[in-house]
Amino acid sequence: MQFIAGIESELEKRSYGLLLQVVPTLDVELATYRTWRAARRVDGVVCVDPRIDDPRVALLSEPDALPAVVVGDPTLANGLMNVWTDDAAAIRESVRYLHAVGHRRIARVAGVEGYGHTLIRDDAFRDETERLGVRGYVARTDYTPDQGAAATRSLLTSGEADRPTAFIYDNDVMALAGLGVASELGVRVPDELSIIAWDDSPLCAATYPRLSALSHDVTRYGAHVARRLFDAVDGKPKASFLDSTPVLRPRGTTAPVPAR
Amino acid sequence: MQFIAGIESELEKRSYGLLLQVVPTLDVELATYRTWRAARRVDGVVCVDPRIDDPRVALLSEPDALPAVVVGDPTLANGLMNVWTDDAAAIRESVRYLHAVGHRRIARVAGVEGYGHTLIRDDAFRDETERLGVRGYVARTDYTPDQGAAATRSLLTSGEADRPTAFIYDNDVMALAGLGVASELGVRVPDELSIIAWDDSPLCAATYPRLSALSHDVTRYGAHVARRLFDAVDGKPKASFLDSTPVLRPRGTTAPVPAR
Repeated sequence: MQFIAGIESELEKRSYGLLLQVVPTLDVELATYRTWRAARRVDGVVCVDPRIDDPRVALLSEPDALPAVVVGDPTLANGLMNVWTDDAAAIRESVRYLHAVGHRRIARVAGVEGYGHTLIRDDAFRDETERLGVRGYVARTDYTPDQGAAATRSLLTSGEADRPTAFIYDNDVMALAGLGVASELGVRVPDELSIIAWDDSPLCAATYPRLSALSHDVTRYGAHVARRLFDAVDGKPKASFLDSTPVLRPRGTTAPVPAR
Repeated sequence: MQFIAGIESELEKRSYGLLLQVVPTLDVELATYRTWRAARRVDGVVCVDPRIDDPRVALLSEPDALPAVVVGDPTLANGLMNVWTDDAAAIRESVRYLHAVGHRRIARVAGVEGYGHTLIRDDAFRDETERLGVRGYVARTDYTPDQGAAATRSLLTSGEADRPTAFIYDNDVMALAGLGVASELGVRVPDELSIIAWDDSPLCAATYPRLSALSHDVTRYGAHVARRLFDAVDGKPKASFLDSTPVLRPRGTTAPVPAR
């Protein structure tokens, strides 16, 4: 909702409204774009969570397509107007930080594989852990707390010598679920286990200990996206714009690995 | 977002779109309604979180107003088409449940005072605690985890004899924050303290222990609201429709008061 509020903060300056469509599947989303284009029902489109070879991006690249902004990595935007955050740099920074305070076994609890940003984070995580000689684990989930909890439980019960000492989660509710599993198993956070949440949120400051998180200003991000959409509507040249690099905010769930 | 998804599940059957406007103040919201009416930009309006003597409800009651549905208690709808959940019954049930398992000092951490449903819950809470001879405490907040935590901290440090043994929170993130404050103070949940969250959500199942919560089907609620909006658009008679009464789902944060 903060992202949407950010978009609207710019739309209202020009008296535009936001038509929001929640779609169950990619096919319905593509059909929606076609309907909007045929009926000229909207002036422009914001396309989020682009996939690799995303058919929506292909559709929005056709000659008579609606003006559009792709919110995601430039490699996924096919030359369309594009606003992004540098997720690869953010996850590299997290891995380096955990390494610096002594962690040598780090797990990434990742979101949906189909999303381009999941793969970008995967690659950066794999690359940085290898570079530092850290053992990296990647668990697949669907972003739900249930799967976040299951992945954490599985990795934490894999035997003392193999057990990761730090987890980086792809969203805040999975990090919360991970913190819960640690309590359930009697693993002390942050003494025995460090946790970092992607997407800092009010939730991250409500837990005990408070969740260390990767933070960026989502409202400002939405406003930036809206301004670039107006550029696209106005026929300005298509380009990629880096909005920000999420910043690691260490709070109560990260600490050095204790000496053995 | 589940509420919005529910609304859209009905809109798409008729090929309607949802124009979503996030507004910073009530004045901007009123101006938005006037603009929409003047421009006939929308076919109908869903008005949420009605206040006592809400000026939006007054505006939507004018002869040439847009068709509307008020989402909230019938006493707040001024005879407009109206869909509601029975919050008073839900909080009474929670108080009775806590009383039945031995609690005699129960706190309600309430949301924004201006909202009609806050006052309806307040009244029902006061009434039911008095009826049962239970000591009731009401703390005011703005729904943020920060204020939820502060209210909990204040009440839990008020001295052993006065300390509430159970808390009912007006949303899920405040309940999470309350659970965190209990950990911070070394108060064991549910052995020494019971917690109930309003608005069951995936978050409630991600904590440890899992949050007991008042639950209703928000997606279905949104769909119901959309169907009644179409009734209003079609000129059907205005009436109040009870969608449901939130149901208490006891999970890991509620337990009997231990014998002394």
